[in-house]
Amino acid sequence: MRCLLIGHTGTLGKILYEGFSKIPEIELITASRQAGDYHVAIDDSESVKALFAAVGPIDAIVSAAGSTVFKPFSALEPADIQQSIESKLQGQVNLVLIGQHALNKGGSITLTSGILNREFIPQGTSSALVNGALEAFVAAAAYEIGGGLRINVVSPNALVGSWESYASSFRGFIPVGDAPVFAAYEKSVFGIMTGQTFIV
Amino acid sequence: MRCLLIGHTGTLGKILYEGFSKIPEIELITASRQAGDYHVAIDDSESVKALFAAVGPIDAIVSAAGSTVFKPFSALEPADIQQSIESKLQGQVNLVLIGQHALNKGGSITLTSGILNREFIPQGTSSALVNGALEAFVAAAAYEIGGGLRINVVSPNALVGSWESYASSFRGFIPVGDAPVFAAYEKSVFGIMTGQTFIV
Repeated sequence: MRCLLIGHTGTLGKILYEGFSKIPEIELITASRQAGDYHVAIDDSESVKALFAAVGPIDAIVSAAGSTVFKPFSALEPADIQQSIESKLQGQVNLVLIGQHALNKGGSITLTSGILNREFIPQGTSSALVNGALEAFVAAAAYEIGGGLRINVVSPNALVGSWESYASSFRGFIPVGDAPVFAAYEKSVFGIMTGQTFIV
Repeated sequence: MRCLLIGHTGTLGKILYEGFSKIPEIELITASRQAGDYHVAIDDSESVKALFAAVGPIDAIVSAAGSTVFKPFSALEPADIQQSIESKLQGQVNLVLIGQHALNKGGSITLTSGILNREFIPQGTSSALVNGALEAFVAAAAYEIGGGLRINVVSPNALVGSWESYASSFRGFIPVGDAPVFAAYEKSVFGIMTGQTFIV
């Protein structure tokens, strides 16, 4: 099973890289902005087209890429929202719209949202918008996508691996460990479910 | 109560214009791309800034503006998603981010999403994405916004007024009449609730 992992260098990406590397039937291919088997800027649709053309037919796309802007609401500007949308939302949507044509029959796509559209923290409104968009997109796309393809999104809580940097913004949240986070992506890649948000 | 209605010329906008016009305590101000007391392109943040500077302090913002692209999923391009996002999502978010500074204490903002992130139709995935984003944005913004401001979004089903054009895409849906649609916006403007999606 050829699995393309986009964004394998961040805290989440490293968990996914380690997890999928250990699964014998997976041939893991990595891509990110500046590292991996291929380089890609997911917010640039031409770069995404070039990536899939270079990688060739695959069976699974897993995305842990994209970021959002954290800023107090009264200071939030249209440009901050746009930056968040281009990176984490349109970037991941580009992987789906273009990647659907590179997937083998029965293949799967797994995106990443996050907790901030279910629980809220100061400066988290851009993240809420992007996560809500991704989850609704996946729910709709699952009905529309052809080729027996499946599509899901994983919504992780704050991660144990980056808790030191985030604890002060996420007071009272219980960060989630590497094993349950990886399990959600494994469930999406190897399961039968589609159109789901897997909350971890 | 000075109420700015953006998008008063479409099927939904006309319902809101008629409804709010009949309420004695409302001073209704209209804006749209090519008609009304003011002209505005909501997807252009400079145009939105100019609108609020010209209108002056207000008590309620009601938006029925923005549109999305309908296209089969296999033919959906990044540019189609971008167009949908710029119009109905970033356009309405611009009204909030810029409008928050023009609202009097205790004022309200009411946006419009739609049914297509809860029930799904062919070619509706762009709408799902935008609606999901708007509803998550509003839920988060309600906690963050200052000045005692409230923010809600109304999610209408297909409308009786445009049913002739939409019936074939919405087989089995029961379109909603003008009165319950207007009531949802009235509830948002005159009530105490915030962060809500009012499903009609």
